[in-house]
Amino acid sequence: MSVQQPARYAYLGPEGTFTEAALLALPEAASVEAVPYPTVPTALGSVRRGECAAAVVAMESSVEGAVTATIDELATGEPLVIIRELVLPVSFALLARPGTVLDDVKTVASHPVAEPQCRRWLGEHLPDARWEAATSNAHAARQVQDGIYDAALAGSFTATRYGLVVLAEPVHDVAGAQTRFVVVTRPGPVPPPSGMDKTSITVGLRDNHPGELMEILEQFATRGVNLSRIESRPTGKAMGRYFFFIDCEGHIADARVGEALMGLRRTSAHLRFLGSYPRADGQSPTVRLGTSEQEFAAARDWLEAARAGGSA
Amino acid sequence: MSVQQPARYAYLGPEGTFTEAALLALPEAASVEAVPYPTVPTALGSVRRGECAAAVVAMESSVEGAVTATIDELATGEPLVIIRELVLPVSFALLARPGTVLDDVKTVASHPVAEPQCRRWLGEHLPDARWEAATSNAHAARQVQDGIYDAALAGSFTATRYGLVVLAEPVHDVAGAQTRFVVVTRPGPVPPPSGMDKTSITVGLRDNHPGELMEILEQFATRGVNLSRIESRPTGKAMGRYFFFIDCEGHIADARVGEALMGLRRTSAHLRFLGSYPRADGQSPTVRLGTSEQEFAAARDWLEAARAGGSA
Amino acid sequence: MSVQQPARYAYLGPEGTFTEAALLALPEAASVEAVPYPTVPTALGSVRRGECAAAVVAMESSVEGAVTATIDELATGEPLVIIRELVLPVSFALLARPGTVLDDVKTVASHPVAEPQCRRWLGEHLPDARWEAATSNAHAARQVQDGIYDAALAGSFTATRYGLVVLAEPVHDVAGAQTRFVVVTRPGPVPPPSGMDKTSITVGLRDNHPGELMEILEQFATRGVNLSRIESRPTGKAMGRYFFFIDCEGHIADARVGEALMGLRRTSAHLRFLGSYPRADGQSPTVRLGTSEQEFAAARDWLEAARAGGSA
Amino acid sequence: MSVQQPARYAYLGPEGTFTEAALLALPEAASVEAVPYPTVPTALGSVRRGECAAAVVAMESSVEGAVTATIDELATGEPLVIIRELVLPVSFALLARPGTVLDDVKTVASHPVAEPQCRRWLGEHLPDARWEAATSNAHAARQVQDGIYDAALAGSFTATRYGLVVLAEPVHDVAGAQTRFVVVTRPGPVPPPSGMDKTSITVGLRDNHPGELMEILEQFATRGVNLSRIESRPTGKAMGRYFFFIDCEGHIADARVGEALMGLRRTSAHLRFLGSYPRADGQSPTVRLGTSEQEFAAARDWLEAARAGGSA
Repeated sequence: MSVQQPARYAYLGPEGTFTEAALLALPEAASVEAVPYPTVPTALGSVRRGECAAAVVAMESSVEGAVTATIDELATGEPLVIIRELVLPVSFALLARPGTVLDDVKTVASHPVAEPQCRRWLGEHLPDARWEAATSNAHAARQVQDGIYDAALAGSFTATRYGLVVLAEPVHDVAGAQTRFVVVTRPGPVPPPSGMDKTSITVGLRDNHPGELMEILEQFATRGVNLSRIESRPTGKAMGRYFFFIDCEGHIADARVGEALMGLRRTSAHLRFLGSYPRADGQSPTVRLGTSEQEFAAARDWLEAARAGGSA
Repeated sequence: MSVQQPARYAYLGPEGTFTEAALLALPEAASVEAVPYPTVPTALGSVRRGECAAAVVAMESSVEGAVTATIDELATGEPLVIIRELVLPVSFALLARPGTVLDDVKTVASHPVAEPQCRRWLGEHLPDARWEAATSNAHAARQVQDGIYDAALAGSFTATRYGLVVLAEPVHDVAGAQTRFVVVTRPGPVPPPSGMDKTSITVGLRDNHPGELMEILEQFATRGVNLSRIESRPTGKAMGRYFFFIDCEGHIADARVGEALMGLRRTSAHLRFLGSYPRADGQSPTVRLGTSEQEFAAARDWLEAARAGGSA
Repeated sequence: MSVQQPARYAYLGPEGTFTEAALLALPEAASVEAVPYPTVPTALGSVRRGECAAAVVAMESSVEGAVTATIDELATGEPLVIIRELVLPVSFALLARPGTVLDDVKTVASHPVAEPQCRRWLGEHLPDARWEAATSNAHAARQVQDGIYDAALAGSFTATRYGLVVLAEPVHDVAGAQTRFVVVTRPGPVPPPSGMDKTSITVGLRDNHPGELMEILEQFATRGVNLSRIESRPTGKAMGRYFFFIDCEGHIADARVGEALMGLRRTSAHLRFLGSYPRADGQSPTVRLGTSEQEFAAARDWLEAARAGGSA
Repeated sequence: MSVQQPARYAYLGPEGTFTEAALLALPEAASVEAVPYPTVPTALGSVRRGECAAAVVAMESSVEGAVTATIDELATGEPLVIIRELVLPVSFALLARPGTVLDDVKTVASHPVAEPQCRRWLGEHLPDARWEAATSNAHAARQVQDGIYDAALAGSFTATRYGLVVLAEPVHDVAGAQTRFVVVTRPGPVPPPSGMDKTSITVGLRDNHPGELMEILEQFATRGVNLSRIESRPTGKAMGRYFFFIDCEGHIADARVGEALMGLRRTSAHLRFLGSYPRADGQSPTVRLGTSEQEFAAARDWLEAARAGGSA
């Protein structure tokens, strides 16, 4: 009688991070083993090496922007693909050891992404406290538990794991902040189109000639494919050389997306397909006149008839 | 024992036109029966009705521009396709009845296309002569023969057919004038790519929105297909509504041309394929980086692998 | 006491042409002397030489397209400008000598522009009649009067001038045909913007590189200027070399039109300004967001402040 | 008799950062007082409040990409402008307290930007050491001095300031890494064009419609202005809303740059001019045909003549 092992899912730990909260929000959470890793590269590396079936990593914050470690890791090395995205509200609390009052707080630790989101609150309520960087907010909480710092910025759900209490909540400056997380696996069958999908790629410039970025955008525009995001990242080879991380509307199985990607493949460099997956916001893409599946199919029929010498 | 009838080729007559000269320049000229028709529409109609296997018609003059009757006839009605083009030098002579001297010439007849090409010469040498329009230069010669006019502008080869002599030659203003002729048939198997082909189409605007012509041009540009000619023609429905006659480099069997035409088919209106055929000037098309057959094939392979979930 | 001579206006004669009808439709018609010329070039030449103050010439037919003689004459030689356009309905009648019946008609003459507009009618009602070209419809009427031809296609108003009667009316195939006429003068102060103007130019390609036409269109598009018409015309120098005649919405005094024309002047060749004048259809141009006079002025103020080092 | 106070220049401290090294590389370094600030926002704030005349801040790393704190601070709040850029090679050393050997190192601290640049070296030479984030590399060195961590990644010049020694050098993975620094002041007269300048702006989308980024790029392309860098940054208002930080070639005093910026001002949102300043690499911009100062001036003259009714 065999016992099925639960699938292992990597995440940016330690316990109590927002990334862990994202993992726990997945439908399959109850049946997977969540495994913390100290950094995004190590979490993704565990998937590449087959130690984990998937990794949950942050991709983007509505306040802080791209999580560049995630983009850079996906762009190079053994291929990985995104199979799902989640967008979670992010709300910070100020955590401290029991018995601490606000006036006691001289040092506040957090991941660097959290600091700017809470900067104004800190300036008003803790003008004399010094901020210290930590590798994750949960790690900051642990350092507070260890007595290294007085307080940590983290999700309130982190408090109990490290024996802390919530001193103040919420402490961020902008209401409605969100973080986008993605579930990453090794390449495999692409999830079928849901009708409201997103496709992610990275693509490089062929020779950095003037207007080359615009040509990349035109490959999408000519096929009526909208971009929802574009990030430039350094190639690391020289100042002023970039590659681009792009999210577009639609699924790689869509004719218009497929033709746009073929256009990039022909005219750009280092195209990498990073997955087609349902959009977290559930919005259907705008399909412009002349770019539906039916219109692509009709155009292909027309071309075949014309090539065969029929009257077209 | 059966006797093979020679194929019948229609042309803009009467005998002695430049169009007949173009027909006689075809390699198959010796084995075809040349049949004159009074107008371009009647010549093309003879092909549509199956009376003739092909028609030779003028398409464009380097001095006078488009032969609009040809464009308009190809754009509507039963489909026809171009299978070949020829570019011939055009050189006008002044023809008159034997015994005429220049001072006798009070009226000069020609096809309206010839008049502007000889206008300056006429102004200098026959400032008082009146010009009269004829349906073809050869018809003008016949009218001179009939005594209706004193002289005709036509090719010198026309003189003997109508009992005329050459009074002056050449009489055009611009040296190096050329006319482009095309051989038109009913749709059938497209001639295979020669490596230096041209493709002709007509295409209409879908809804006349601002920038729609630019979108048509972008369908070609994004696939690296150069245009060699674009003519706007009225649709006849209202002032300010046009369709376009376009010649582009390459063959409909080329991946880049095919994809551009499919793009037009999807986003424009009334696309009509008018043939792919060898260019008269024998120039090879410029194939831009990323638009060769090999690059299109590689991109398609890439897409199929990515869609199948392989690492791409 | 001096007597004011009436201004002389040239037109394509002889009396009874549609062009004369257009001239007579001008508000100032009562106070000008209408002078017929045998061709468009001679009519425009009379303005260049100062014999006439203005010329009325046909520019475009909704059925037959561009009047290429007009475009080509305006594109070269001493500069002329358009100061006004008129669009008139064109309706053909079949004119003959009194006493003629339809069965008597063996020959029908007209300007070549009229023939295709009446082709189907002729095919049905006069299938055996032969069509003959004339330099104008009125000239055809005169030739009918002279007994050379049996009938002429012309406006019904032409009949009485040449002692003819209307045998049939209307005889054109497409209802609603229109012809656009323009009033041309020597350069002078541009008519002030009316709020619904059109601007005409001719422009050449600098070096015929691929995509050059699209670059011309982009000069307009980037400034939100819509084109209402574009015609390609041969330069006459070699097969495959063209210049373009363009009508765009708006007035040269408009900031967006001015900037677009400066862009053409910098990047193209042989730009010629052919006038800004009220549109015959009285339509106001679409002014896209960011392209109004106010927005251009505000942008200029912003730039000046930024250049001066103010905070912008 | 008055004594002139030296100008105060803010930088990201503490002493020993690469930013301090950049400040010391300025020609005026000898005559300015360098004032360390704990973060980019506080350094820039000191300029806004008038405490310092200028701030030196990192803008971009050839390995890690944008310094988003710098971009985000320049994009909002009281306007600041860049007056100069410097590009410095960045070379990391492993610093430790005297007497430490490599085997003793269990923890390595650095700014998060340094970690990925040294990741592979650390993996090979210190596979078991734990990396810890610090707010600057110099701060990490101070924490090593304080005994909190065993070693720090920093420039070797940092060692002596904190009583440390160099354990290994260089320790980065990619040779030739560079960081770009900028000198920022309050708005004032723009430095005159040097002939090889760069202009920085931030610009937002007006309504996030499809293709809006491409329209921004076209404003530059139509005027022949090349971009050297584009970064997207979240507006902080909602997931999926971005603004762009753009560096383009040329100076705001250049006609082509000025017209492109006016185009952005008209059609985009939140345009902010962040300075024109000499490029660190000393490269002259490519000036495309039709976009030189002379050609812009000639086009303006042409337009004025045409508007005045001269023959143009």
